Amino acid sequence: MAAQPIYIGIIGFGNVGAGTYRTLLDNEASIERKVGRPVRVKRIADIDWARPRPMGVTAPRELQTTDARQVITDPEISIVVESIGGTEPALDLVLAALRGGKNVVTSNKELVARHGKELFDAAAARRLDLAFEGSVGGGIPIVRPLKSCLAGNRIGRIMGIVNGTTNFILTRMSEERTEFAEALAEAQRLGYAEPDPTNDVEGFDASFKLAILASIAFETRVTVEDIHREGITGLAARDMDYARQLGYVVKLLAIGAEVNGGLELRVHPTLLPQHHPLAAVSGPFNAIFVRGSSVGEVMFYGQGAGPMPTGSAMVGDIIDVARNIRSGATGRVACTCFEDRPIRPIEELRTRYYLRTEVADRPGVLAAIAKVFGEEGVSLASVLQMTASGETAEIVWLTHETQERQMRRSLERIRKLSEVHRINACVRAEAQE
Amino acid sequence: MAAQPIYIGIIGFGNVGAGTYRTLLDNEASIERKVGRPVRVKRIADIDWARPRPMGVTAPRELQTTDARQVITDPEISIVVESIGGTEPALDLVLAALRGGKNVVTSNKELVARHGKELFDAAAARRLDLAFEGSVGGGIPIVRPLKSCLAGNRIGRIMGIVNGTTNFILTRMSEERTEFAEALAEAQRLGYAEPDPTNDVEGFDASFKLAILASIAFETRVTVEDIHREGITGLAARDMDYARQLGYVVKLLAIGAEVNGGLELRVHPTLLPQHHPLAAVSGPFNAIFVRGSSVGEVMFYGQGAGPMPTGSAMVGDIIDVARNIRSGATGRVACTCFEDRPIRPIEELRTRYYLRTEVADRPGVLAAIAKVFGEEGVSLASVLQMTASGETAEIVWLTHETQERQMRRSLERIRKLSEVHRINACVRAEAQE
Repeated sequence: MAAQPIYIGIIGFGNVGAGTYRTLLDNEASIERKVGRPVRVKRIADIDWARPRPMGVTAPRELQTTDARQVITDPEISIVVESIGGTEPALDLVLAALRGGKNVVTSNKELVARHGKELFDAAAARRLDLAFEGSVGGGIPIVRPLKSCLAGNRIGRIMGIVNGTTNFILTRMSEERTEFAEALAEAQRLGYAEPDPTNDVEGFDASFKLAILASIAFETRVTVEDIHREGITGLAARDMDYARQLGYVVKLLAIGAEVNGGLELRVHPTLLPQHHPLAAVSGPFNAIFVRGSSVGEVMFYGQGAGPMPTGSAMVGDIIDVARNIRSGATGRVACTCFEDRPIRPIEELRTRYYLRTEVADRPGVLAAIAKVFGEEGVSLASVLQMTASGETAEIVWLTHETQERQMRRSLERIRKLSEVHRINACVRAEAQE
Repeated sequence: MAAQPIYIGIIGFGNVGAGTYRTLLDNEASIERKVGRPVRVKRIADIDWARPRPMGVTAPRELQTTDARQVITDPEISIVVESIGGTEPALDLVLAALRGGKNVVTSNKELVARHGKELFDAAAARRLDLAFEGSVGGGIPIVRPLKSCLAGNRIGRIMGIVNGTTNFILTRMSEERTEFAEALAEAQRLGYAEPDPTNDVEGFDASFKLAILASIAFETRVTVEDIHREGITGLAARDMDYARQLGYVVKLLAIGAEVNGGLELRVHPTLLPQHHPLAAVSGPFNAIFVRGSSVGEVMFYGQGAGPMPTGSAMVGDIIDVARNIRSGATGRVACTCFEDRPIRPIEELRTRYYLRTEVADRPGVLAAIAKVFGEEGVSLASVLQMTASGETAEIVWLTHETQERQMRRSLERIRKLSEVHRINACVRAEAQE
């Protein structure tokens, strides 16, 4: 074929950039046939060409530059792949690329979650594509399925295991009875967790992804500030054991739901019934579960991170954008945040709660706590009492569905009871359906 | 918006047609915003307007016709939804629609599997869309993810539970120890199986779906004749029990794999390791597992049939085609069968085998059979001997990976041994990874 190539520029040549470049090269012939024109990388910008790349991927010297502006202003380049990560300088560069008429492909969840509106407005102003499949779930197809395949549904609920680091840690804690700190150290050794793990273990990463998923699913621009967020650092291996006894597994879930026209948005550890399709998702895997008005329940499962899986998503987006360029149809699927649904305060949430309390080991303690629950209208589903030593006992509680507000009031009162030494854990639980 | 509507015509108003129509109506406002133009049903053809529709869906009298030609020749209609099923008269009507310049959306797996090439050629000749997401996995997004999201991968393997009827039957046989005939009768009572169940239980339906999936995944036109097919009618509840003891579940799988540049294509009951992501897919649910060069393992899960799930897929396709119409980009994703990979004969398959034999209950029988396996080079992984009565015993064998040809030669010899009364079951097994 003598057709004019479509030229790509890559900014940021770390894990994702290298995985994308490698995937493009490995599949060059197939991609050319799918697009109908050759797709070529013309220029790659990175601030440090000396650092080692995953799988030893290298780029030819003539493609290398340290100046991202050279990429985003190159008149031959029509697709800019952003794989810098974070918001600075990614935001300025992506905005400049869009304003200069370049289509953009990115897997930068923080960028899309924090600055989605500004970016989509810039893309729409020039009818360009801004594709971000890799920003959620690594290589798992979820953004395009939501935007196209499931577009004929009203989405009622979306629920995901979208952070592989925490899922690895929780799987270890559950299967090996490892405590959090040790499981985290192991995740760090294996490269699943960063030296500073805050972003993962405190649920920030999952919030970025939920903001993106919920914006599409509920047709409303959701930002990270709209999301109630709790991390997994307070959990102990014994919580996993108790959860199992009660028929649950513990997962860090990102949950979005439409309730009476408002949006419930939260990231926190959750007791999930053992038979739920998401419950079997273990180790570093990710999965996203969606309930739609016509489709019913669907789930998407796969590797949520890594240079090659994310590279797969980036290249899928590049092919899609390139097909649009060839057909003169960039911008054909634009932002779909047509609604402005209100965000429901967490106090209005109705769910079940798992509670682990450390109490004085003497008669009447269980009754005292149960009395508080009764007075606050919280109804109990299960109680497990474990007498540990002669001095303290552990009582594990599982409530029926109740309102967060009532639960919080109960906890406040229970904490003040002289027989109660400590509330060790309070974790929301999904209903057994 | 005063934009000109995009008009739809529906041919065939049974379960899928009614589910599609209902989904279109329920989401009219959202669809209009997503497409940028109103999407309206202008005409619906069905041969029998008196029969009852699922969920009591009805169409206004002025949309009804009994003449499909009125739909496919209406100059205002730009998208024809084919929901007749089967190949006659669907093939003629769809070809006529395409030749007349209409885009087509269909969930007709038999039509696409048997006549894909002819149909895609007709669509390409006029740069039209022929969309068929609903033809595999009901509402589960799989066709578009394969064609776009995963387009940067070389697919090595695709493996699906794509027939809900047989999965329901096998789940019953496994969980309730129901025998096949009874489980089938129950499936028929619940509406999961047709009065004539051949198409499902003999694996024809799954072959159609595999032909479609494999054509996309391996970029090679695969027809049903290329697929080795076996049904589930020979299985007994005890096979489920033995499989469980060996660490497996039994599923009817549709498997496509690239092996040394050739394609392995088969539909048959399979012992699947209990920890495999597909193993937990039970009842009428479907799931498709894909292994790609960059993405690794991904899985898509959901309801594989039913008016509303299939309607969800049809409406997702309608929205996609309508977006193409609005952008002047129909035909932007065409057929991708660029290769012509050879089909590998089933005799060359290498896999494990589960075998259940009924033998005379006397010393030396096990040794006699094992001797045949040894001479044919078939190595054994497990042997379970169950002494049933005083006269006959049951021996269950699980081999290591071996070639189908060697296994067939062994079976031929074993069948002739005087101590062997019967070979009750021989089922292929996936390796424990």
